[in-house]
Amino acid sequence: MSQVASLDLVQEDIRKVEELMYAQANRHHPELQAAINHLVISGGKRVRPALALMVGEMLTGDKEHIITLAAAIEMLHTATLVHDDLIDGSLLRRGIPTLNAQWTPGATVLTGDFIFASAARLAAETDSVRVMRLFAETLATIVNGEITQMFRSHGLASREDYYQRIYAKTASMFELATGAAAMLSPVDENQINALRKFGYEIGMAFQIVDDVLDFTGDQVRVGKPVANDLRQGLITLPALYYIEEFPEDPRMKAVMSGSTSEKDLQTLVFDIRESGAIEKSIGESSEFIERGILELQVLPDNPARQSMIDLSNYIVNREL
Amino acid sequence: MSQVASLDLVQEDIRKVEELMYAQANRHHPELQAAINHLVISGGKRVRPALALMVGEMLTGDKEHIITLAAAIEMLHTATLVHDDLIDGSLLRRGIPTLNAQWTPGATVLTGDFIFASAARLAAETDSVRVMRLFAETLATIVNGEITQMFRSHGLASREDYYQRIYAKTASMFELATGAAAMLSPVDENQINALRKFGYEIGMAFQIVDDVLDFTGDQVRVGKPVANDLRQGLITLPALYYIEEFPEDPRMKAVMSGSTSEKDLQTLVFDIRESGAIEKSIGESSEFIERGILELQVLPDNPARQSMIDLSNYIVNREL
Repeated sequence: MSQVASLDLVQEDIRKVEELMYAQANRHHPELQAAINHLVISGGKRVRPALALMVGEMLTGDKEHIITLAAAIEMLHTATLVHDDLIDGSLLRRGIPTLNAQWTPGATVLTGDFIFASAARLAAETDSVRVMRLFAETLATIVNGEITQMFRSHGLASREDYYQRIYAKTASMFELATGAAAMLSPVDENQINALRKFGYEIGMAFQIVDDVLDFTGDQVRVGKPVANDLRQGLITLPALYYIEEFPEDPRMKAVMSGSTSEKDLQTLVFDIRESGAIEKSIGESSEFIERGILELQVLPDNPARQSMIDLSNYIVNREL
Repeated sequence: MSQVASLDLVQEDIRKVEELMYAQANRHHPELQAAINHLVISGGKRVRPALALMVGEMLTGDKEHIITLAAAIEMLHTATLVHDDLIDGSLLRRGIPTLNAQWTPGATVLTGDFIFASAARLAAETDSVRVMRLFAETLATIVNGEITQMFRSHGLASREDYYQRIYAKTASMFELATGAAAMLSPVDENQINALRKFGYEIGMAFQIVDDVLDFTGDQVRVGKPVANDLRQGLITLPALYYIEEFPEDPRMKAVMSGSTSEKDLQTLVFDIRESGAIEKSIGESSEFIERGILELQVLPDNPARQSMIDLSNYIVNREL
């Protein structure tokens, strides 16, 4: 985390967010506490809470409520990961064993539920009905997206489908982080809307970069096998660019019908990498970032705003 | 449902609650809509929403918000059932196939999550931070109770454990129904507390009667095998009374260590029924009901209050 200089401004508050996350399991069952501790420790870069905290800094929002909001959002994010890993049967995340690698499905479901409950409890502690509403809407969007993905027809590869999916999966929560933090700050509707838009744009970019990393990242650093999405028949932006150029590639058709061989998959990944699809995808994520940064023009020019711009640029450049 | 006369007063509003429940899946994935419809149709007597609606009637609370609250509570209840059935591997509930009897675990988890999200969204629409907080607290209590039950040591049979369990499982949600409806009504703290206490007492009674029905109910009407709890090593109040009288019964020890035979179980159930444990348990549930009804003394004496008393009495007398 320390390598991301743009997070320095909110580093101390991120500690407070993490403490609040640990505290959710206090007075609850010891096994549950251990699980929550494990999940919080193995968390990622805390980009979502960092964004909420930066918005609060920029707008001199209510600090205590924004820390609570940031913890609520990171708990929500964590809960969705716990259930996702269970559903996918993933045994590792960020190179660390998942909960369901160690626990029964039942215990994993309930731990996810408990983390959802903690997230809801924290969100309620922001004392803002409007934040609560956005929070609940976002949860519904995320889960509906997962259900749509689960029931999706094999062989579906459309941009519309892709953008909807990454909005539900990622951008909706970024939008929540920036929008809800604005709602807890002394600003007008115009600025709240600009910050929701900002969160949306950089969230979309963040997921596109994640999808690119699935093609280009090395297995050890990313903590999961390369081209995991494609292996599961999930068509992300690099694959979409490739399909647009080579609509008849039989290997892609095999991937989409769920009948590919590992060897074909590997040569396909190689060809996608060589096709320019990666560069086009990165270019597209940069466009999202640029649109996001433009939204910040209506907001106060101060170090926090600069940190948000730095973090946005970091999102495209990380680990590529 | 029609046989419960005390529900007549709120019957029309219960229809509105159900419509609101159906509407949660609108504009979402068709498979999800079908699942939600299935779950709403196969719902029970709607005791929880009925209680919230009756409190609203009694106190001239904000009707629209209380209908929304009632839907939120019944959705929360439904979501916990969906995940419970998955965890227990139950294939029937109320004699109707469960979701997980028809769907993959993943789809079942996500449908439960979606219903949680809908419940949270509805709760936020009550526009009351206080209701939201109580709602989130209750969700945490319920899930923590399930986790405690999952990790409980075999062979544990204490009243303290039992009361904690049925509070988490049932009474907490009754307390939410009556307490939150009071919070949406023009009343003082004293009355809110009385209604929370009322909800607590009749919720405890409701679960005790449920636990008695597990021993006495006939399989067809209850929709699951008799003595299902005991078969799973779960010690409920009738078994506790039996153990207090016959602490050395080896069949009970076998049940608690998870090593009983079906034949021993059947003779044990017969002996528990004959021991007076059923009558003692019903007596105890009646005491909870009496304490609950006493709490209503500080509240306006009107037809809605009478319906609440009737419903309370019905809880002990149903299907015995």
